[in-house]
Amino acid sequence: MSLTVLQKQLLPEIETHLKIFLQSLDFGQSQTLYEMISYHMGWEDVGANHGKRIRPFLSLLCAGALNGTIQNTMPGAVAIEYLHNFTLIHDDIEDNSPIRHGKPTLWRKWGLAQAVNAGDALFSIAQLSMLSLNETCDEAIALKALEAFNHTCLNLTQGQYLDIAFESSQDIDISTYLDMIGGKTAALIGFSTFLGGLTAHVGERQLELLEAFGSSLGMAFQIQDDYLGIWGDPQETGKSAATDLLTRKKSLPILFGLKQSDDFKNFWNNEEISPENVDTLAHMLIACGAQDFVQTKAGQFTEKAFKALDQLFPVKNDYNIALHELTETLLNRNY
Amino acid sequence: MSLTVLQKQLLPEIETHLKIFLQSLDFGQSQTLYEMISYHMGWEDVGANHGKRIRPFLSLLCAGALNGTIQNTMPGAVAIEYLHNFTLIHDDIEDNSPIRHGKPTLWRKWGLAQAVNAGDALFSIAQLSMLSLNETCDEAIALKALEAFNHTCLNLTQGQYLDIAFESSQDIDISTYLDMIGGKTAALIGFSTFLGGLTAHVGERQLELLEAFGSSLGMAFQIQDDYLGIWGDPQETGKSAATDLLTRKKSLPILFGLKQSDDFKNFWNNEEISPENVDTLAHMLIACGAQDFVQTKAGQFTEKAFKALDQLFPVKNDYNIALHELTETLLNRNY
Repeated sequence: MSLTVLQKQLLPEIETHLKIFLQSLDFGQSQTLYEMISYHMGWEDVGANHGKRIRPFLSLLCAGALNGTIQNTMPGAVAIEYLHNFTLIHDDIEDNSPIRHGKPTLWRKWGLAQAVNAGDALFSIAQLSMLSLNETCDEAIALKALEAFNHTCLNLTQGQYLDIAFESSQDIDISTYLDMIGGKTAALIGFSTFLGGLTAHVGERQLELLEAFGSSLGMAFQIQDDYLGIWGDPQETGKSAATDLLTRKKSLPILFGLKQSDDFKNFWNNEEISPENVDTLAHMLIACGAQDFVQTKAGQFTEKAFKALDQLFPVKNDYNIALHELTETLLNRNY
Repeated sequence: MSLTVLQKQLLPEIETHLKIFLQSLDFGQSQTLYEMISYHMGWEDVGANHGKRIRPFLSLLCAGALNGTIQNTMPGAVAIEYLHNFTLIHDDIEDNSPIRHGKPTLWRKWGLAQAVNAGDALFSIAQLSMLSLNETCDEAIALKALEAFNHTCLNLTQGQYLDIAFESSQDIDISTYLDMIGGKTAALIGFSTFLGGLTAHVGERQLELLEAFGSSLGMAFQIQDDYLGIWGDPQETGKSAATDLLTRKKSLPILFGLKQSDDFKNFWNNEEISPENVDTLAHMLIACGAQDFVQTKAGQFTEKAFKALDQLFPVKNDYNIALHELTETLLNRNY
């Protein structure tokens, strides 16, 4: 209930602030660069698809739950969404992905050179938006936010480095894989929740708990994504059954299988994977304990996330109830 | 004299600080990402080639000339060099350039995906280094530096947008071209000189003059580069005569010729350009006034740079004498 109400209130505010800040910048003779960013953000058509703005929403909910004000947090929340979108522009180039949100990716539409550059522009814009916390909060908070933000950026590129390296790697440790998703997915979500507390002027202990909440949520979400990529119901996920096996994605259950089961490893290395034999392969993973392992890992991070929430918010308010609901929605999904 | 002495003193200090800051960051399981950046910076072999570190050197000279301390300015100076190198990594990708400083470019050596990502990592590192001005100066200066720095970054991407767009454009205005080099070359040099003054705690009027000095220097340097690309002595430039005509680079004299001379335009659009006819074409440019125009433009910016120097430094000291000498060396070159 709280979640729905706050989504209706805050998501349009986030969208408005995202647009306003971009419009406030002078693009001079480079209007097309503005249009490219606008297109990527999903604003070129009324009702065009875009991301769910989960990260800035989490920042605002955390700020609200800790008696901070939405307005003070907004420039940082918006910066996180710009940064996330910058990473998507470059990820799409690095992964050679032609489609995002049902539309051609930026590099498909404007070419590789312009897309790399538009990503860089959006990275600068994210920094500028984060800097404007100086106006809504104060100098010390703006600097602390920027420091953590840029360590997160570096962390993201380290995660992305590993992800790209995995493509051509035959032997990936589970711990290295968890590092990868830690950098690529969990770090920015951890920063989002941290930022909410920072702009609400909470102390170090609470900031640590907020970061632990966000990064555990990110880890649990990604590991569950890996689970659903093999055992998700196609009717719910909208993808074919065992899609990660068919696309040979080196996700957590598959890495576990490659380490623990010679049968799985032989099949993976020597056979063509097709819709006809994919069930056999998925069962091999269950037999060697991959499903249990992934469920346990997801469960551990889920528990960590909820535990941090409980410690942060012993007394209920609308915002922290919404945070709880959002966490449940994100982690108890079947899609 | 002052210049040589200060080069010998400061360039090794810049190099040391560049290395130390990079080494201070935790790359965890992504050591290769560290190696990629190290390779691009020119550190993988003793005596390997790298850039001249002109931008951080300018920052330090400006700081010294205004009674600032080198140590206080250093984190910002180093940040500028990282940022410059980040743009080179992405430029090499965008221009499809295989070689830089006599070595394979990053994308040639590690592939496109890893190179885009390593550029992003270096961008974050530049931000972190600029943030550490908070330790050598104070919060207000760090924030002001970061604000100007990120506006400069955005300006760089706008210049780069135009540069890429020009490749497929038939009709480029001279004023748009000047905007392009303003963003791509002059903005970061203007920021470098500005930063020197900012960290030396000078007032707004002097900051404006410093920025005017640096950006005029950058404009004059680039326009002279365009001049030398057609009329430079191959023995001095180390390139073939009229290299920009042979490679069909849309530089300032060529854009002027396309606007002012139908003969040149017809030749350019309809003929193969070869070492045999390139002299004819270079003379067409002289005949239509392109050489005069480019010399006048370069002269205007050169004069502006020296005028700003005179206004900034009515009384001589070692640092501002070195700045004067450096400006002369950069702008009165034949190579």
